[in-house]
Formats: sequence, structure tokens, C-alpha cells
Amino acid sequence: MNREDCLRLDAADPLAPLRAEFTVPDGLYLDGNSLGVLPRRTPAKIADLVERQWGEGLIASWNTEGWFERSQSLGDRVAPLIGAGPGEVVVCDSTSVNLFKTLAAALRLRPGRRVIVVERDTFPTDLYIAEGVAGLFPGVRMRELADGIDEDVAVVLLSHTDYRTGAVHDMKAVTQEAHRHGALALWDLCHSAGALPVDLTGAEADFAVGCTYKYLNAGPGAPAFLYAAARHHEAADQPLTGWFGHSRPFDFVPGYAPAQGITRFLAGTPALVAMAAVDAGLEIFESVDLAEVRAKSLAMTDLFIELTAGLPGVELVTPVPHERRGSQVSLRHPDAHAIVQALIARGVVGDFRAPDVMRFGFTPLYLRHVDVFDAAEALSEVIRDGAHRDPRFSARGKVT
Amino acid sequence: MNREDCLRLDAADPLAPLRAEFTVPDGLYLDGNSLGVLPRRTPAKIADLVERQWGEGLIASWNTEGWFERSQSLGDRVAPLIGAGPGEVVVCDSTSVNLFKTLAAALRLRPGRRVIVVERDTFPTDLYIAEGVAGLFPGVRMRELADGIDEDVAVVLLSHTDYRTGAVHDMKAVTQEAHRHGALALWDLCHSAGALPVDLTGAEADFAVGCTYKYLNAGPGAPAFLYAAARHHEAADQPLTGWFGHSRPFDFVPGYAPAQGITRFLAGTPALVAMAAVDAGLEIFESVDLAEVRAKSLAMTDLFIELTAGLPGVELVTPVPHERRGSQVSLRHPDAHAIVQALIARGVVGDFRAPDVMRFGFTPLYLRHVDVFDAAEALSEVIRDGAHRDPRFSARGKVT
Repeated sequence: MNREDCLRLDAADPLAPLRAEFTVPDGLYLDGNSLGVLPRRTPAKIADLVERQWGEGLIASWNTEGWFERSQSLGDRVAPLIGAGPGEVVVCDSTSVNLFKTLAAALRLRPGRRVIVVERDTFPTDLYIAEGVAGLFPGVRMRELADGIDEDVAVVLLSHTDYRTGAVHDMKAVTQEAHRHGALALWDLCHSAGALPVDLTGAEADFAVGCTYKYLNAGPGAPAFLYAAARHHEAADQPLTGWFGHSRPFDFVPGYAPAQGITRFLAGTPALVAMAAVDAGLEIFESVDLAEVRAKSLAMTDLFIELTAGLPGVELVTPVPHERRGSQVSLRHPDAHAIVQALIARGVVGDFRAPDVMRFGFTPLYLRHVDVFDAAEALSEVIRDGAHRDPRFSARGKVT
Repeated sequence: MNREDCLRLDAADPLAPLRAEFTVPDGLYLDGNSLGVLPRRTPAKIADLVERQWGEGLIASWNTEGWFERSQSLGDRVAPLIGAGPGEVVVCDSTSVNLFKTLAAALRLRPGRRVIVVERDTFPTDLYIAEGVAGLFPGVRMRELADGIDEDVAVVLLSHTDYRTGAVHDMKAVTQEAHRHGALALWDLCHSAGALPVDLTGAEADFAVGCTYKYLNAGPGAPAFLYAAARHHEAADQPLTGWFGHSRPFDFVPGYAPAQGITRFLAGTPALVAMAAVDAGLEIFESVDLAEVRAKSLAMTDLFIELTAGLPGVELVTPVPHERRGSQVSLRHPDAHAIVQALIARGVVGDFRAPDVMRFGFTPLYLRHVDVFDAAEALSEVIRDGAHRDPRFSARGKVT
């Protein structure tokens, strides 16, 4: 594979026209798995919400613009990306808050069971929230996935795609294993949604959450999504019982009565300005075939793995089998942090995850095969020339 | 008081120039206590965040634009409006979610006590969230304020300004009464913040929450604020333990360790696009003297009360004494809903609260005395002419 081969692949790429939908920065931005780039249509979408719907329509827009049902209508548009049905997804709050709601609901669906199964290396907020929820349910504790699932397990909470390694769980197999023991499965889709096809229905998953600011390109801190399988709606009891989850919020009655369906997972008033950017990000996906996204993603990560194989000191962290790989490539190197800094100084933006991992995210909607080639070349050059040994490339954390 | 008197008051109004800061709609918008109008500076503020900070800066903006500390820096700018000190307020999540956090923290600060004191007629989400929290603390139940505060009370949760009646609690007296029994005081400031001076420090309040989309004009569903008195920070333990509340979120370590100070009340990644509108709304207040806001607000509500006194079938709900009155006037009438609809049809936008209350909000930053006069005239005309008996003015709820 040389650079010309990559240019030929780009010329034949069915997704290539989508690049024009985005404000792609100069250099090589391989951090769309942390924060997706700005879609070109987003500013106008936000301006319409702010200047026309809010500025002119004011409170009337709650009815005339569908603000009341915005969480549900956006959720219905996330649904096909994650294999959910209509009425099974809402867009609201943050991933952390949605994890809290679904995890508490799961524990209440399995009273008497005392274990939340997690992975110690999962994205930390999942563990922190699990700790917070466990602290409210006497006797509930966490257990490592490696220690097994048994009849004491209420819920298995896992990241579908690992944020650090890019490794993907077999959602169906793990969910079946959980169900075999009477436990529920709750999936964190932050690093999967929009990056690869997800089939929550096919896997018979119980709950899921995920963010919209990575592969869905909805902007920093954009509202997250929450999935609950329809079969759990009637019995689901989550403790963040705000008025938007009430069956008749505008009757202003004192007692809480949960709404039917997925609506009972809502809490407070939704952040409509931020949701306009979710709307814009999802619009782009309406013309996208996720099978093409997946094929291009695998071609790109295959290429990066091939081109960086054998670099001195570099060890591949991301699994090689396609079915176990997300849309990123993670490499281990003792000087990972300095190398990432040296690459950023050249305009190649990946990121570092402690203690020694370099992450490179490949977003098929706006990256090209030639970008993968150039990024691999830059990495090879830095390592070959020792550019990362420059003392200005010192340690510092950064957000996913 | 005639219309010319009102025009003279407006000519002498020190706040009159502020009206130019807002996109004031045609007609008379008396619902800024539900959703404040759009500040003229907001679209550019949002566009800067979206197009420059996100679009160009991407992940680097977490550091270069202060995104990591945005919840705290906005909180420090809310602080002077509510009598809080620096480091005592954060802007994040919704009011409902922030109520959940503070109420749970309050119960944990008073272990063994089993009562949350509320008012049945408070804004319903406060009651719903209190129910949700109570369900997580065995034995905890709610009690009406009228039934008294005693040594079994953990926390008193009250709206400072009642959403329906506009009645204001004596924050200092109620807080002292709570403290006298060893209980904590948690104030909902949704209908107070930006409408009248609030002195949380002077009242020795323990916790407070409030929204930014009413008198602070930050747009539909804008992130809310949360106050915790500094003396409670070290012991405060709230269960929504997301990574932004962690002491070292970017170390990606598995165990939760709460940050020092108010930061431990954060949960997930903040909604930065929506927070740009909070930023814009707060900027306007930086040049505003809240004593002038309060004086104008009282002059406007005095005027509306005077001009509507004696209208047939109309009963004043809002308290007459200034110290007990917020920035709205609520009137009771058997045909309240139809009258509100008839007024809206004439471009005079107030709102209806079941079963029989008409609310008229007076926002001193962008309304004029002459608007008050014209609104009172319109109300008098509708009632005098029986315009509300037109069958098209039928029942329907609406958001606060």
C-alpha cells in the first residue's frame, strides 16, 4: 500500500462526498473518538432554534416546534444507529446521569441480587457512577467481569467498545451469558454509536447509554442518549423522577406518576439549544449506510495497523480480528505521551491515555485513506527521528 | 396613574437602556418568568463557541477556552445574584438533577433523621424529586411545612418564590427555624434568581438550586445552577458521582475520590453549547444593580395590582406586602384559562396555572411601565367585554 493506492481508494469511496458536510480542520484530526468535528449544517440549525424558535416563538415553541417531545423524537432518530426500536431511546442529560438512571432501574428490576459486574479498565465515569449507585443500595458491590457472572449478579455494565484499547465486546454473547444467570445487561455505547453498527435488539440488550459528541458530532458535552428495551418499560423504576418523566407534567399535581414507555427515563427540562446540534449531527446519518461506515472504518484501521507494524518499541493494543475492533487503533509505547505531543506539534492530533497508550481514532465520515497513510508516516518519522525526545513534550492529561 | 404617567416613569427609568439588549417580541410578553427572552448578544456568543472554539479549536479548547472549569466559572458569576461566595456555585445539569444531588447530600449530612419538609403547592418537580430521593433512603418521608419543623427533620426544601402565587418566603427566618432544630435548608431559586436580590449567605442557607432560563435569559432548558455553602463542602457526599466531580478526572483511575469544594457536585461532561447562552445572559447582569431591578419590579407589580383591583370576578393571589412578593402578579378568576387564551389572541402573553390562576410576570430588564399599563387595560377589556367566552379559548396546559 502506497500513497497513490490510498488516493485511488478515496476516489472510489462511496462515503467520500460526506467530507464536505464537515468543517475538517487543517492537519490530521484523529480524535473524533473524543470530540467529533463540527458539521457545516450545525451553526444554522442552532441559529434557527435560538433566533427563530426561542427568540420569536418563545414559550409557544414548546408546542409549535415540538420541544416537549424533542427528547423522544431525537431518540427515535438515534434508534436505527444502535438497533433499537421506536419509543426505546431518549436524548437527555449526560451519559453519567443516564448511567445512574439505568443502573438504578436495573437493580430495582433484580431485587435481592447484590452484584454489579464491571471491568476495572472501563471508562472511569462508569465505575464512579456504579459506586454512587451501589452506595444507595445496601449490600450492593462491584465485581470484575473476569470473576464471572452468577445468580448474585443483578446487572452487567460494560463498554461495548473500550475507550482505551478499542476492543469490542461480543454484545450478544455477553448479554446471553448475563441472561442465563437471570442478570440484566447495560451497555455503554459511547465509543460505538455512529462508528459501527450496533444491534441492541438482536443482542436482546436490556439497557444502554451513550454520548452524542464523539462519532455523532453533536458538540462538546452534547446531551446523551438512553435506551431501555420496551419489555422493561412498565416495570422500570428509576429514581431521578423529574417532571419530564411524569405522566401528566402539566397538570401540576403533587404525586409522582411515571409516564408510559421510555418517557419515564426523563428527568428535568431538556437542554434545547444543545439538542439542536444533536439534531444536525443525526441528519447527516440519515443518508448514511452504517455497513459502508463499518467497511471503511475497518479498511482504515487495517491500513494503519499494517503501516505501523514493526515500528521500534511499538506494540499493538487494539485487537486484530475485525469483530473485536472498534474504529480506533491504540498503540503502546514507553514514550507514548511524548510521541503524541510531538505528533500534535506536527498537526497530527491523536491522544494519550495513561500510562502508555496512544489512541488514533478513524472517523469514516470525514477522514480519507490518504489521511491514514499520512498519519502513519508522521508517526514513523517521529519515532525514527526521535522527535519526541524534545523536552517540550512533557506530561499532561486530556479529555476523551 | 394614567398612560402618560407610565411613559414619564419609563423616561426616568435607570434600567430603560437595557431593553435594547434584548429581542423583545411584538405584543406584550409577560411570561419571562417561564422563559426569558433572547438577549441580542446570545447568537454571537453561541456562534463563537460553536464555530471557533469547537469547530476550529476542537479538543484543544478544553484547555485553551476554559471548558474544563466552565461550570465553576459560570457559577462564580451567578454567585453575586444569589448572595453566594466564590467557589460556592456551579452551573450544570437541570434543576431537577441538581435538586436530587443536594437533597441526597443533605440527607447524608443528617443521618438518622427521616423527614423532608416540603410544601404541597410547590413546583411539582421539587416534590417528584423529593419522592425519588426518599425512595432511596429507607424510612424517609415528606411532611408539609404547615405541620412544623422538629428534630426528625433532615432538610427543609422550599421554593423561595412560589411559581404559582408569586409569594416569597422569609428565607432567613425559615432557615433559622430549620437550624434551630438541627435541620438543613435547601432553597429552590428558580423564580427568584435575577428577579430580586437573594442573600443565601446572610440567611445562612445550606443548599440552593435554580434555573437560568427564566429571569437569567439563558434559553430553553439551559443548564441550571447549584449552591452549597462552603462549610458543607468537605462532608458533602452526593450520589451522582460522575467523572467531572472526581478529584483527578484525567488520571482515569478506577476509584471515585470527590474533588475538593463545590466541584464534587458535578457529574457528567457539561453541555458547553448550552452554557454559552448562560454566559451571554449573565454578562448583561454584570452591569445591573439588583436593587434597581427590585425597585422597578415592585413598582411594576404595584401598578398592575392597582390597575386590576376591583375587576369583576378577579381575586389577587400574590401577596401585597413587598417583602412577600416576587416579580409576578397572579390573579384568580373562575374563567382564568379562557381569559389567558383571549389575552394571548391579542398578543398579551401571560400564562395559566391550574385550576384558576392567571400569572403575569414582570421582568424589569426589558419591560416598561407602559407595558404594565397596556396589559392591565387589555385584561380589563377582555373581562368587561366577555371576550374570553369565545368557544375557541379552550383548556390546555403549558410549561413554566
